[in-house]
Amino acid sequence: MPFSESTFSTSFSACKRIFVDFKLPAGALAALRAGTEGYALLFPETPADSVLQVGGADAGFASAEIVLGQPDPAAVLASEAVRWVQVTSSGITRYDTPEFRAGVAEKGVVVCNSAAVYAAACAEHALAFLLAQSRNLVPALQTVAFAEPADWLTHRNACVSLRGQTILIVGYGAIGRCLAAYLKPFGMRILAWRRNPEPEAWVTFLPDESALAEALGEADHVMNILPDSPATRHFFDDARLRQCRPGAVFYNIGRGATVDQEALGLALRENRLGAAWLDVTDPEPLPADHPLRREPRCWITPHVAGGHADEALSLVLHFLDNLRRAERGVPLINRVM
Amino acid sequence: MPFSESTFSTSFSACKRIFVDFKLPAGALAALRAGTEGYALLFPETPADSVLQVGGADAGFASAEIVLGQPDPAAVLASEAVRWVQVTSSGITRYDTPEFRAGVAEKGVVVCNSAAVYAAACAEHALAFLLAQSRNLVPALQTVAFAEPADWLTHRNACVSLRGQTILIVGYGAIGRCLAAYLKPFGMRILAWRRNPEPEAWVTFLPDESALAEALGEADHVMNILPDSPATRHFFDDARLRQCRPGAVFYNIGRGATVDQEALGLALRENRLGAAWLDVTDPEPLPADHPLRREPRCWITPHVAGGHADEALSLVLHFLDNLRRAERGVPLINRVM
Repeated sequence: MPFSESTFSTSFSACKRIFVDFKLPAGALAALRAGTEGYALLFPETPADSVLQVGGADAGFASAEIVLGQPDPAAVLASEAVRWVQVTSSGITRYDTPEFRAGVAEKGVVVCNSAAVYAAACAEHALAFLLAQSRNLVPALQTVAFAEPADWLTHRNACVSLRGQTILIVGYGAIGRCLAAYLKPFGMRILAWRRNPEPEAWVTFLPDESALAEALGEADHVMNILPDSPATRHFFDDARLRQCRPGAVFYNIGRGATVDQEALGLALRENRLGAAWLDVTDPEPLPADHPLRREPRCWITPHVAGGHADEALSLVLHFLDNLRRAERGVPLINRVM
Repeated sequence: MPFSESTFSTSFSACKRIFVDFKLPAGALAALRAGTEGYALLFPETPADSVLQVGGADAGFASAEIVLGQPDPAAVLASEAVRWVQVTSSGITRYDTPEFRAGVAEKGVVVCNSAAVYAAACAEHALAFLLAQSRNLVPALQTVAFAEPADWLTHRNACVSLRGQTILIVGYGAIGRCLAAYLKPFGMRILAWRRNPEPEAWVTFLPDESALAEALGEADHVMNILPDSPATRHFFDDARLRQCRPGAVFYNIGRGATVDQEALGLALRENRLGAAWLDVTDPEPLPADHPLRREPRCWITPHVAGGHADEALSLVLHFLDNLRRAERGVPLINRVM
């Protein structure tokens, strides 16, 4: 058991104050109130607009045993009350430091992310990218007439069936697992890389990082779902992008900092990559005059992969699920520290 | 057994001339030549540019026992030699008349379509539409910056997860089966309508056409894959489109004539439908000044759903597969008459 559940169960019984640092629409707030009877809900004076924004310092925070949102890591370490932080994103970059990990371990603070909330929607976005690319969707939507009948065939032949193609998923976590499940019926060869993978019958896991070069040389589609950490910063650098097979398509729905964007732009300009589809960039939003925006085969969505209608409600339900687990003394979902 | 296989096996042994009425790229032609040793390949003087175009009359045609392409139905009925027509499309509208059916039945001519060649690519196109819609893909690709941080959340919330949604597949043939297999892991409710369906565990088939009204009222996504025939002409008329639930999304990857496009335009203008995604229209290509082209939530691709790189090669391989079956006296694939 990687985490000390029994200690948390004991300390949890004293948790009565929940600090929520982001704006909740009426429906999600109602669900939160209904599911937290007997607890005090504390809100900051200026709630954050998004789940990627760090919550501001606030008087209420210091007394809360439970925090739902994106609290400032230093404030968490300074708090004497906090027992459990439920982070409202899948990525935990701002908490993933040796200092913070050591601090919460010492204080016995439990940290969970909300990967379960975003995995399906992220995998659907990844598949939307994959199919929009293989069906040549955007150019096809812009085509009104053909100059010659033969142009129609050119259009049809610009499409590619995924059947028999190879995809490499780099960073095979909750999203990758969900994507692989979606891809199972497509008749693709699915390669994946993760440090400690759980086996999956229809996925071929690379034995170690050194196998990546060969896999990159074979993949028609390179799907990057790496989280942001010091170890993954510019993981896709010039050298790795040069290992991709000619015409390969690169996707990023992990975090922008895992890619050397200058090297990516070069790979596109030199026609080594067939296209790039990015939901995440560094920085976000990517400036209007960024060179990648001028690449005709670079498609960018503004970090919406995990989004879905009622996202705030999903986050609240995920939190309440964990709250019920904490009350029953069973392991929390998506615990990361 | 719906077709007389034994009669065909007997008559097939005399088949030695294959008429091919469409332009083949070098690779597909090489595969055809390699797979038809011992047969004579006959080509027209002016081959058709596409598999949707009817082949011209030609001297070679009259002597061919086997025809690969889109022969003129009258020429097939007039031919004394022809035994087997391998149609190079999935749709068989031009052959699906009582006169033609009676004529080939009387002459003992076997007719196959190429549904197997297009099913996977069509289903991939259908899913590309579905995901582009649910991920709000095209608007997201066009978004460079947000005026306010809150606009970002609006964008994210414009996305919808397919999980828990309902899709109704109308015209559940080879493409529908393939699409349903792709959708199986998504956690959707899949309803389907077809006159004589083969049961599928994860698909709920409507008992009869009268159940369509209720199903249309429940479906978030209405996927029309009906073929074109007198019975399906304007199947989706004003009345059926009014049975759709408010905000439902309508898709057509079957044939354009199955939809009353005026009624569809009205449903979009009156905001009864959330959007429409059409790969097929009536006529094709849809004129640049057609009213549907002015509907902002009407997305049109130019009949490319079945297309994929090496499409001609796939058609040749499908034909050769059937040729080998004919030689061995086993039932042909995709036989329709």
